[in-house]
Amino acid sequence: MSVVKLEKCREHIREQLDNVVDFWLKYSHDTVHGGFFTCIGKDGKVYDELKYVWLQGRQVWMYCRLYRTMARFHKSEILEAAVAGGSFLRKFARVSSSSGHWKCAFCLTRDGKAVKVQRTIFSECFYIMAMDELSRVTGDKDMQLEAEQMMEQVIHWVQVDSSGLGRPQLPGDTPINSMSVPMMLLCLVQQLTEGRGQEVAQKYRELGSWCVQQILQHIQRDGTAILENVSVDGSELPGCQGRLQNPGHALEAGWFLLLYSAQWKDEEIQRTAINKFVELPFQCGWDKEHGGLFYFLDVDGHCPTQLEWSMKLWWPHSEALIAFLLAYSHTKKPELLERFYQVYQYTFSHFPDAESGEWFGYLTREGKVALDFKGGPFKGFFHVPRCLYMCELLLDDLLENKD
Amino acid sequence: MSVVKLEKCREHIREQLDNVVDFWLKYSHDTVHGGFFTCIGKDGKVYDELKYVWLQGRQVWMYCRLYRTMARFHKSEILEAAVAGGSFLRKFARVSSSSGHWKCAFCLTRDGKAVKVQRTIFSECFYIMAMDELSRVTGDKDMQLEAEQMMEQVIHWVQVDSSGLGRPQLPGDTPINSMSVPMMLLCLVQQLTEGRGQEVAQKYRELGSWCVQQILQHIQRDGTAILENVSVDGSELPGCQGRLQNPGHALEAGWFLLLYSAQWKDEEIQRTAINKFVELPFQCGWDKEHGGLFYFLDVDGHCPTQLEWSMKLWWPHSEALIAFLLAYSHTKKPELLERFYQVYQYTFSHFPDAESGEWFGYLTREGKVALDFKGGPFKGFFHVPRCLYMCELLLDDLLENKD
Repeated sequence: MSVVKLEKCREHIREQLDNVVDFWLKYSHDTVHGGFFTCIGKDGKVYDELKYVWLQGRQVWMYCRLYRTMARFHKSEILEAAVAGGSFLRKFARVSSSSGHWKCAFCLTRDGKAVKVQRTIFSECFYIMAMDELSRVTGDKDMQLEAEQMMEQVIHWVQVDSSGLGRPQLPGDTPINSMSVPMMLLCLVQQLTEGRGQEVAQKYRELGSWCVQQILQHIQRDGTAILENVSVDGSELPGCQGRLQNPGHALEAGWFLLLYSAQWKDEEIQRTAINKFVELPFQCGWDKEHGGLFYFLDVDGHCPTQLEWSMKLWWPHSEALIAFLLAYSHTKKPELLERFYQVYQYTFSHFPDAESGEWFGYLTREGKVALDFKGGPFKGFFHVPRCLYMCELLLDDLLENKD
Repeated sequence: MSVVKLEKCREHIREQLDNVVDFWLKYSHDTVHGGFFTCIGKDGKVYDELKYVWLQGRQVWMYCRLYRTMARFHKSEILEAAVAGGSFLRKFARVSSSSGHWKCAFCLTRDGKAVKVQRTIFSECFYIMAMDELSRVTGDKDMQLEAEQMMEQVIHWVQVDSSGLGRPQLPGDTPINSMSVPMMLLCLVQQLTEGRGQEVAQKYRELGSWCVQQILQHIQRDGTAILENVSVDGSELPGCQGRLQNPGHALEAGWFLLLYSAQWKDEEIQRTAINKFVELPFQCGWDKEHGGLFYFLDVDGHCPTQLEWSMKLWWPHSEALIAFLLAYSHTKKPELLERFYQVYQYTFSHFPDAESGEWFGYLTREGKVALDFKGGPFKGFFHVPRCLYMCELLLDDLLENKD
């Protein structure tokens, strides 16, 4: 791929990032009750006032990250929005659970009343991400401490005792290793340790290493497949749950592992990340007929039971772009850049809405827009801007070193 | 529509019912651990051994109903399968909840260990349906009593105190009237009272009337729309939840109301059932471009947030066939028979699998098979055979009276 082509990519990605940031600055802020609207229609209109906590936390994180690390977003408008979102979260997201610990709600009313609490760790994890990143831009040490305390609790749920999550113990519900859990924790380890020096890095080193081992357990079938759920001792589970593949998720794990391998200079993990978590999921997940990445697959070729299995969602494509570009920047293998460009072409010719800005999130298998909103219960200001932000930085770096 | 055309319909429906019954008799029985496999692939192969309790209960019910009321299914093979399914359910489906009541699991392992318990009433309701119908063919009074006791508990959860279901009380989670609850209870009232004489009918009369009133609360927007969720005082709820329409569900409620109107000779409810719960959902729910009924819609035309909103599922079509044919048999209005035939043509040209038998369950908006299994977590031996069974009986009746 020529330098000119890469420069065009960067230019386009830069414009897209500006466009997406503008969209959310314009339409998502609730200036009455605080926090962010997340259900935003094609043209920016709020079609539901519920506030999804994952997305509140992710938006705070993304605003802060942009403010802190990209000069053109170092603007008071963005900082103020992040601070306001953080206040809303701190005020309303935490609900005390029956076990006396804090749980974070999954969903709040516009004025902050808890509507739903999930019996998982993810609302808490995005709360931690938000608080840690916000504390970096505000210098608020209390907030940083709060993030660390919440982190301790999440680690306790995952590694020691999950009963505080509120799931009933059932004889047929044996514990599993779901890839999302070690991925999420690894992401938090990277968040909490980044740039904080050796002491903090060492504090979380063991946990990071545990997460990596847990993720590597998902390499199954003699290294030919990444499976989304495995047993706690790393063997294949029976039935649909055991055969499930989520290519976008594996690709996301791939770039998490690449970041880890760079931090600890671990070449074996780098190789595994690229071969098993980037190339393999792409090979199995790419739709040879219509292009794009499937959402779910069954490793034995059965039809997944998820009704949306063949749909093309924005986020697996966002994750694939990051994964291939990062893999290329680590190795300079041209085939990885070719893959990046293949995903790039599908993504940018299908997801962005040239008319009203931002990206559509949900396409049919054939690539037609199936759901036309820009924000919903699971799509907020996160995967799109994180992808554009990371790709822009990677391209900056690649082009600088080429010149 | 001519008598010849109706006779051809009946013939085809009869063949389809035989075909579907054969499919489940052949592929779904677990002769080792008892109960029924429900995850059955295109060609009859079990692709997951989990046993979904809704579907266990429904299959017992359907086998018994066929055995009891249709001469050609009065076979020991069917009775034995129903009895074996009932034993499996009684032995394994009930798990004691923290409140000391019985809850039914949502899903069991092949050998009957509980995997998941939902915090709703539906597993219990299908358990009741199964036990009541099974007690009718076996004459087991204990079983009938057990069904009635479980029914008392469900009524308590719905009308008095839902805390036994295990949902946490959250300030933003205000109680709602979801159409599925009064529909399910009305169905059970009809099940428990059918042919049992005046005393039993009176016992449940107030509950039946309450269910009807709860269902009628879903007529909204000056009678122009059926909304799936309303407030407990019958007003529209805010946001997506409030605007949600589920045309197949409204059509199913329509024929439940028609049965009720016939039982109590209530012409006003009959009119409302046909105008509001049959014609209206069909008008709004039918896809003018590709044919078939949408799964979900938003009354204001926003895009629903359910990823599968535009898919064509088998069961709304099954319910529509029953609703239109029953409405026609009550009124003899030819336009209702025309509608029946419109749905019939779409249904029988899209869902049945001529190659391996049974029906596909999930099509794309355009009518292509999107998921090719015959049974899954929510598709079992229920909607298809119930539809074929009811339509065959209705057509028998219509053709007999025409001759």
